[in-house]
Amino acid sequence: MKDISVGLIGFGTIGTGVVKLLRENEELIQKRLGARLVIKKIADVDIKTPRQVPVEREQLTTDVDDILTDPDISIVVELVGGCTHAKTFVLEAIRNGKHVVTANKALLANYGDEIFSVAEDQKVNIGFEASVGGTIPIIKTLKESLAGNNIESVFGIMNGTCNYILTSMTKDGKDFNSALKDAQDLGFAEVDPTYDIEAVDTAHKLAITLSLSYGKRVSLDDIYREGISEISQQDIEFAGELGYTIKLLAIAIRRGEVIEARIHPTMIPFDHILASVNGNFNAFHLIGDASGSVFLYGQGAGMMPTASAVVGDLMDISRDIMAGAWRRVPLRSYRENQIEDIDLLGMDDVATNYYFRFSAVDRPGVLSAISGILGSHNISISSVIQKERKLDRDAVPIVVTTYKAREKDVQMALEEIDRLDIVFGKTTLIRIEDDRLR
Amino acid sequence: MKDISVGLIGFGTIGTGVVKLLRENEELIQKRLGARLVIKKIADVDIKTPRQVPVEREQLTTDVDDILTDPDISIVVELVGGCTHAKTFVLEAIRNGKHVVTANKALLANYGDEIFSVAEDQKVNIGFEASVGGTIPIIKTLKESLAGNNIESVFGIMNGTCNYILTSMTKDGKDFNSALKDAQDLGFAEVDPTYDIEAVDTAHKLAITLSLSYGKRVSLDDIYREGISEISQQDIEFAGELGYTIKLLAIAIRRGEVIEARIHPTMIPFDHILASVNGNFNAFHLIGDASGSVFLYGQGAGMMPTASAVVGDLMDISRDIMAGAWRRVPLRSYRENQIEDIDLLGMDDVATNYYFRFSAVDRPGVLSAISGILGSHNISISSVIQKERKLDRDAVPIVVTTYKAREKDVQMALEEIDRLDIVFGKTTLIRIEDDRLR
Repeated sequence: MKDISVGLIGFGTIGTGVVKLLRENEELIQKRLGARLVIKKIADVDIKTPRQVPVEREQLTTDVDDILTDPDISIVVELVGGCTHAKTFVLEAIRNGKHVVTANKALLANYGDEIFSVAEDQKVNIGFEASVGGTIPIIKTLKESLAGNNIESVFGIMNGTCNYILTSMTKDGKDFNSALKDAQDLGFAEVDPTYDIEAVDTAHKLAITLSLSYGKRVSLDDIYREGISEISQQDIEFAGELGYTIKLLAIAIRRGEVIEARIHPTMIPFDHILASVNGNFNAFHLIGDASGSVFLYGQGAGMMPTASAVVGDLMDISRDIMAGAWRRVPLRSYRENQIEDIDLLGMDDVATNYYFRFSAVDRPGVLSAISGILGSHNISISSVIQKERKLDRDAVPIVVTTYKAREKDVQMALEEIDRLDIVFGKTTLIRIEDDRLR
Repeated sequence: MKDISVGLIGFGTIGTGVVKLLRENEELIQKRLGARLVIKKIADVDIKTPRQVPVEREQLTTDVDDILTDPDISIVVELVGGCTHAKTFVLEAIRNGKHVVTANKALLANYGDEIFSVAEDQKVNIGFEASVGGTIPIIKTLKESLAGNNIESVFGIMNGTCNYILTSMTKDGKDFNSALKDAQDLGFAEVDPTYDIEAVDTAHKLAITLSLSYGKRVSLDDIYREGISEISQQDIEFAGELGYTIKLLAIAIRRGEVIEARIHPTMIPFDHILASVNGNFNAFHLIGDASGSVFLYGQGAGMMPTASAVVGDLMDISRDIMAGAWRRVPLRSYRENQIEDIDLLGMDDVATNYYFRFSAVDRPGVLSAISGILGSHNISISSVIQKERKLDRDAVPIVVTTYKAREKDVQMALEEIDRLDIVFGKTTLIRIEDDRLR
């Protein structure tokens, strides 16, 4: 039986999971693959601390060149994370003719163009199933299973940390800070949670998803992005009264030749299948022009779920190696010469439904003033909730939901409303996705 | 650009969808594939009736040999259905060195051994994504994405007709017959619905799923199978009171070297994601030993969703053809020489939770008699609902749910209980899946 030699760079949680999985399911993998996947070398700065799996001393090295320059090694697995070192290692591996498997979404979202272009020149494969949605086969589904479809839309819950926090706020009535604290205690959130809760991680994943869905290059800065740190328990409760759950959604919608791409907390109907995605799970709701709705769900992170995706890629690439096939499937779904710069719809021109929560003085005429301004900006109200609940400064919350309105009009109306002296502070805005999820 | 010639046998609904999709998304498919998929010939007994897509007169034939013997044609798509003609055509195509794409689960479940073995000899591919779960990428996920995993369990809603009927009974309070009538009017059920409602279709799909998950051959007769025609509105309501939804589930569970495989109406908790699969959708809840829960959902049938899966297979096989690769992925997930006969756990030895609905006389001591017999067969009661609702013959329903019990014990206990003269008719039994879905 053929041996396929693998070099592993980064022996942290995921790296340990990969070694563990290849060992525990060795026989199964051979029955399916017809070859042995052999971890020849593992490089890490720390090769002293024992991991959950026993490895031979000779397998370990602190020098990545032991992997990058070893002619026996066919596939390099990059699991160091970050962009600086990872980029150097990945490019070096590719230039040395090695296939690469990576879970590094930041690297691919920021330097994908360079990496995929060098890989194309060197005729090597890049496996990156683990970079988006962890164990969920979203990359393969977009590149292969749904390849005959125009992707009409992607609605994704792509960050388990945010989903854990929002679930905990919704189900347990926690406020944002204590839900975040719980997530940190459970290891679902970093000490500095910015990367997750401000949706930077989600933006990386959406950028990758966009290129596979539409054959387009996208600049990260062009994707509209709002995190979850402003979501209050009050908004979660009002959402519930209105029949909605709040999720951090990454949204991509095809509008002819233009793509709408945005990330923000979103109210979705209770009975939509995305609303049932709780805790640290990830999920993707795709609509293809032929397939209709396809929904994929699973663990977006974690040692063994991520290792499952990495090993799936290792087997995929091994199958190409054994069959003598290269670039059976284009690296980014479209042949590289077909990939274009993306034309994103500007956020001003996005039209959706809205939820506003105003803090206003408890006095007659307030709703009339607010609705007058909304109307003058072509925004039609679909429902109003006015409660006698006192806030600080004698303010009461007034909740308004709208029919479809244009973002630009909404921003102008809110600016005008927030200047009224009967309205306190900045109005809360949460977008609602209703009909596009039907 | 290279042309890949395709012959289509069967120009019904799905065949029309395939032609339509290849035409409408022609440019997109070329951008992704780097080749043109050309339908060279379409064979059907009826080439007169106009279809939804215009085709050239020269493309049509009533003689399948025009396809089967054409050396230009690389891939044959079989969409005639049934086993007799389909088997002949598929085997002939394979023997002539052509790759085959089929949506025919009956064919593969009954004659898979012969078909895959000849395909192996002839070094051709068989694409059958459309045969299980329609547009859902369940075949590719099992064969490729989760290839590094031992599949611990598969819980599937594999038949849209049954799911439509059960959803309509649950949401609209319909009885079985009127829900079936609606499904027939909407084209979701055949005039003779036996194949769907008695779970024959589901058994075909489970047999295919089992071979991919476990590398095992399974005889259809060995799969325990119960349809939905005995489900009453009363049971749906009691299930609701207990916090369950009734779904027709196909279940496969790995128990060491033995596999548990069964199909029956099953009560599942409201808050499990499978409970949110409504209408004619299909879904698969897989647990891999590394991946954990993975859930896939989409349309299990219909013109364009099925065409999406067929075109996905056409592109997959074309990629192999263009790369000069053959059998990159083993036809049935395991290399053919690794496939073994399955060792199924006998139904007697299955242990699960149960729901019983007894019709009993309205008299003290009845529950005591019933629970005494259950206890004597090692069956522990977890809850009881006794209502004063009169049925015919002055019977009242007594509903009992149990902790985990062995099927054999349950059957013996019910036989004894049904002989009591305080109990009328045959007791209703519905299995409950609770903890394995957590």
